[in-house]
Amino acid sequence: MAQFSTPTGLIANKGIELLTFGTPNGFKVAILLEELKEAYGIEYTTQTIDIYENVQKQAWYTKLSPNGRIPTIVDHDKGGYAVFEGAAILNYLTRHYDPDYKFSFEDAFEACTCEQWVAWLHAGLGPMQAQANFSYRFHPERHPFHIQRFVGEVERNYGVLDARLADRDYIAGAGRGRYSIADIAVWPFADVTEVGGVHLSKFPNVYAWWERVWKRSAVKKGMCVPSGEPFRFGQAKMQEMKEADPKGWEEREGPLREALKSAQKEFGYVYKSP
Amino acid sequence: MAQFSTPTGLIANKGIELLTFGTPNGFKVAILLEELKEAYGIEYTTQTIDIYENVQKQAWYTKLSPNGRIPTIVDHDKGGYAVFEGAAILNYLTRHYDPDYKFSFEDAFEACTCEQWVAWLHAGLGPMQAQANFSYRFHPERHPFHIQRFVGEVERNYGVLDARLADRDYIAGAGRGRYSIADIAVWPFADVTEVGGVHLSKFPNVYAWWERVWKRSAVKKGMCVPSGEPFRFGQAKMQEMKEADPKGWEEREGPLREALKSAQKEFGYVYKSP
Repeated sequence: MAQFSTPTGLIANKGIELLTFGTPNGFKVAILLEELKEAYGIEYTTQTIDIYENVQKQAWYTKLSPNGRIPTIVDHDKGGYAVFEGAAILNYLTRHYDPDYKFSFEDAFEACTCEQWVAWLHAGLGPMQAQANFSYRFHPERHPFHIQRFVGEVERNYGVLDARLADRDYIAGAGRGRYSIADIAVWPFADVTEVGGVHLSKFPNVYAWWERVWKRSAVKKGMCVPSGEPFRFGQAKMQEMKEADPKGWEEREGPLREALKSAQKEFGYVYKSP
Repeated sequence: MAQFSTPTGLIANKGIELLTFGTPNGFKVAILLEELKEAYGIEYTTQTIDIYENVQKQAWYTKLSPNGRIPTIVDHDKGGYAVFEGAAILNYLTRHYDPDYKFSFEDAFEACTCEQWVAWLHAGLGPMQAQANFSYRFHPERHPFHIQRFVGEVERNYGVLDARLADRDYIAGAGRGRYSIADIAVWPFADVTEVGGVHLSKFPNVYAWWERVWKRSAVKKGMCVPSGEPFRFGQAKMQEMKEADPKGWEEREGPLREALKSAQKEFGYVYKSP
């Protein structure tokens, strides 16, 4: 699936073309496409949009996706209609390609509840987790106020999800719920919480749900799009790295963890949710 | 509409009950409800959820709105069904109460384009503008890196909107577009950019659209919900304050503006969009 030269335009002429990169925002769309493939035989073509090379800012791409971000899909069977923003893509794909409501809901109220949790991910948990990842890990400087602020907001959000999952197996749907795009939207973020210094062990209901969803083959496949390899920041891969080289792991993770602890102490952080 | 005691539960028994506070996230729902009132005679009841008193964290409220944020609506005519997250509320209200598609789209592709821009606001511009407001103005300390980072991201997003509006009057819809929930979602944020140090004068297409939408009586009314007064951070109100007391204005705004300038210089900020 992966190509070796920088994309300069669309390459497919039928079906769905996915323009993406290995981040939680991209994975959710890849997971849904893998689910649709298993359930209905829908095929799709992928191109890697390397965000480290700013391919998502090139003119041919921003014509399709004006915000210059991944993921974007183009539906060649619908006149080349393009969709940007993950929440809109999940809705587009289920509306057009999930006629049996295997990953979405026919009932207007169940569909709206699903939509509320997708929106919560997109407006709340997702953007805040991105900021926590940046402050906790990727920003070369440690800024204590911001580290504890964003990590705290992420923990608050996982507390909300943990309460939601206290008496259900999946985020949306009647009774104990049913696997849907609400789970698909949120799961890739729950898979990478350690990037931003948050551990699912604090959220047992979220962890049980993480394990439940991880068993799905389409989820495992989607998490390898577009690189073909398991995501290096996924829980499973990180556990593997930790076991393979505990000393190297501790050398890298220890200082980040200590910086968070010290920031939380400095600003009197106390976990609270919601 | 405003009550003088702290809410402890729902007060209406028919129609829509809006639980909200005076922030852009609340205003967009109030504007749509005012539009639906003018267009179809839909009535609604409002309760003020004072976020400075953490009313949104009380158990009766989080039972309806598990993330403990405003706005939330409850539809007493649909069994007390509750909806949280602005994007989901706009969809819910138009699906059930906009049968003539006056603020939404019947065509699946136009509806999806509208949804993409609502999602862009909810996942991108909205959360980043909230962070810019905090770093630029509300946080008592000035943290240069974060000020220029978030203000820059907000400017980048308004650049995206400015490009979108280059050849159209409204964000979604065929041709030059048609007023819809995409405009309603984004407009309250565009009305308060100065809170976060961003000036619409840099984005002439956005400014022209801001003026176009501001002419609507439902927008003016929605921006006064729930306080009954024009929002103190709205462009019109801020202009009024500036003219009434230029010296006081400059004493308050000057240091914030200088802190941004100096932060942008320190980190070599250059405007780029998308």
